[in-house]
Amino acid sequence: VVAHVGPGGAGAARSRRNCAALDAASRFAETRNWFELPHGLLYLDGNSLGPPVRDALGAVTRLLTEQWRVGLARSWNDAGWWDKPIELGRLLAPLLGSASDEVVVCDSISVNLFKVLAAAARLVPGRRAIVVEADAFPSDRYVAASVAALLGLETRLVGPGHDRAALGPEPGLTLERALDGAGVVLLSHVDYRTARRHDLRGLTALVHAYGALAVWDLAHSVGAFPLALDDDSADFAVGCTYKYLNGGPGAPAFVYAARRHLEAVSQPISGWHGHARPFGFLPRYAPHPGVRRFLAGTPPLLAYAALEASLRLWQQVDLVELAAASRSLSELLAALLAEACPGLELVSPPDPAQRGSHLAYRHRRPRTLVEALAARAVVADARQPDLVRLALTPLYLRHVDVFDAAERIAQTVSQLG
Amino acid sequence: VVAHVGPGGAGAARSRRNCAALDAASRFAETRNWFELPHGLLYLDGNSLGPPVRDALGAVTRLLTEQWRVGLARSWNDAGWWDKPIELGRLLAPLLGSASDEVVVCDSISVNLFKVLAAAARLVPGRRAIVVEADAFPSDRYVAASVAALLGLETRLVGPGHDRAALGPEPGLTLERALDGAGVVLLSHVDYRTARRHDLRGLTALVHAYGALAVWDLAHSVGAFPLALDDDSADFAVGCTYKYLNGGPGAPAFVYAARRHLEAVSQPISGWHGHARPFGFLPRYAPHPGVRRFLAGTPPLLAYAALEASLRLWQQVDLVELAAASRSLSELLAALLAEACPGLELVSPPDPAQRGSHLAYRHRRPRTLVEALAARAVVADARQPDLVRLALTPLYLRHVDVFDAAERIAQTVSQLG
Repeated sequence: VVAHVGPGGAGAARSRRNCAALDAASRFAETRNWFELPHGLLYLDGNSLGPPVRDALGAVTRLLTEQWRVGLARSWNDAGWWDKPIELGRLLAPLLGSASDEVVVCDSISVNLFKVLAAAARLVPGRRAIVVEADAFPSDRYVAASVAALLGLETRLVGPGHDRAALGPEPGLTLERALDGAGVVLLSHVDYRTARRHDLRGLTALVHAYGALAVWDLAHSVGAFPLALDDDSADFAVGCTYKYLNGGPGAPAFVYAARRHLEAVSQPISGWHGHARPFGFLPRYAPHPGVRRFLAGTPPLLAYAALEASLRLWQQVDLVELAAASRSLSELLAALLAEACPGLELVSPPDPAQRGSHLAYRHRRPRTLVEALAARAVVADARQPDLVRLALTPLYLRHVDVFDAAERIAQTVSQLG
Repeated sequence: VVAHVGPGGAGAARSRRNCAALDAASRFAETRNWFELPHGLLYLDGNSLGPPVRDALGAVTRLLTEQWRVGLARSWNDAGWWDKPIELGRLLAPLLGSASDEVVVCDSISVNLFKVLAAAARLVPGRRAIVVEADAFPSDRYVAASVAALLGLETRLVGPGHDRAALGPEPGLTLERALDGAGVVLLSHVDYRTARRHDLRGLTALVHAYGALAVWDLAHSVGAFPLALDDDSADFAVGCTYKYLNGGPGAPAFVYAARRHLEAVSQPISGWHGHARPFGFLPRYAPHPGVRRFLAGTPPLLAYAALEASLRLWQQVDLVELAAASRSLSELLAALLAEACPGLELVSPPDPAQRGSHLAYRHRRPRTLVEALAARAVVADARQPDLVRLALTPLYLRHVDVFDAAERIAQTVSQLG
């Protein structure tokens, strides 16, 4: 049995029968049963919102009935509610390549980015700028600009991005020019549109060579392939848990802070959950000695319950194998679409090692295409002005699903003309 | 039938039989059935965490199974997820005495306070200070101090509080001295320890007379008695929904912003959910014209589902009647305890019009007392160093419950000596 479809795979490797053989031999043949997916749906939108794991409803139900209904306020202690952000941080740590005491699960990416950028900038007083990519997810740009303005720093854009027009006419600097005197650099590990993957270790080293700190947005990385934040010397990172991690709509986000920074770092949303002694009710804020200092207010426990159900399953996932499986699926999809739709332009890097776990194609009417695909039970998503994204998620997507999806995509593209 | 137990009620009014008669005639005789409460439990801790309404589990289950599992990412539009923070704001508005377009449900109080204090301060450039009460909830003090430091403002403490020692030795200013040159004043409507209620209208007018803006923390007000934020000319307010509003542990908090400020106000956590055109992916942040500009990142939908189930029931609650019922319960409890435990000091204002919906008593070992009460199925909570809080929540607490609780409290206090 062929383990993976390589880029030079023979035509036969791309038959549906061969896909089924690959699936039968796959390390992930059984993980599909972890999830609740509508029958017959080809879901290639896991980069937007992952499906629920089967125990998500059970976990939420237990929290609601056994803890909230019966334990009531005592569950803050008795059911471990107070420590959930730390406990889920520990479960997330192996997926980030971090120690278990460097991660906390809380708030949204935007809120966490605000905390982390301000915290990082305070560690490098005298530096003049926060650097952000021109083609970063817009919210990252907005928050970086706000933090810079609050702290009296410049915002420097690096780029240009692949479709700078969508994000405005600013000329982007090269990263090395932008780094001169900069304090903090915010980088998107995987581009939300093209899936272009940065060299996290190499860019972090470059940022450090200029005396700045590297903050990574991992929204499209975590749960897609292995990460090694500690080994790669990342300073800070944020990310969400509702995409590849299947935590649920709006599931809590996370903060990673390298241990070497924990003692000195201070973040500005100094709510009591980040205090060293929250029930001491002390007059002044004194941050918790650990990563808990990145917490602010009371966390939404129902959302944590669903996320926890998923993270417990993720402990069984070998991320190296997962990335290999994603690569196999994406090479199959790319090969099938290159053959069937030669006019459809792949915007993602052709080298799988340089991308995340989705493929982006250019189409002049992406929303129309996505709607037409939905009518054929293929779920993708559109990003204006001209991209369609197709996520490859080996835990619940098989080679046969990709094979079938490619056929329907080819038919639909052809019909739309 | 006696409608309420007055402060001068005859001894007979305080018999269990008369309590049962009051309950039978109560406007809230049936609302107890809205909730899931363990049989026999006397829950006087609704100021900490309200119990779930019966439909909470159904609402969360529907979101998880019908929307997340079946609709997947399409539910952001199809199930109205995108607008939940606004929709729940509309449901909350009547409880605040506000127009339906001045409230948004999101994040935690600490995060919202950060946004609102910074936003308010930016509306009054040239002013030198943020004023906060020395006996405010500590998180409010921490966040106010952080915002002030970020904006180069002073933090001025007003007080002294009733137990300033617990919060440190700072001498508090009088409010009028603190207001000189101040830009923003953060006030706790109901004190989290004593239930002391401020005159929201009068203090807001005083703050305005000095050219400053009034920000109100309503954590212990909303769902306890009627509010009239618009009529009282409040500028901004924050509050939570997990206490009297029964939204669930860590349920999303809210922001109220008076419509007159909406056009000019800008908050610093400029995430994409607050953008005028979030899917335009524009290069610069442009706030939504409405109160949506107080949103930051992606909201935790599971938590919103439970809160919505409760807020839909709250639409049927007459808050004037609720406050009268709370007063009746609190006067009963105060009278019974005054009689049975003459040594137990009531720290709350004796006039029910000057307090929220809980009573605080001084006890030298509050945690021991609370533990001993729990063993007798009476749930209260302790606040160090020496307070026990007892919440009166007419939607699910009856006069007979208060009668029984008072008996057990008296026995327990007597046994602890």
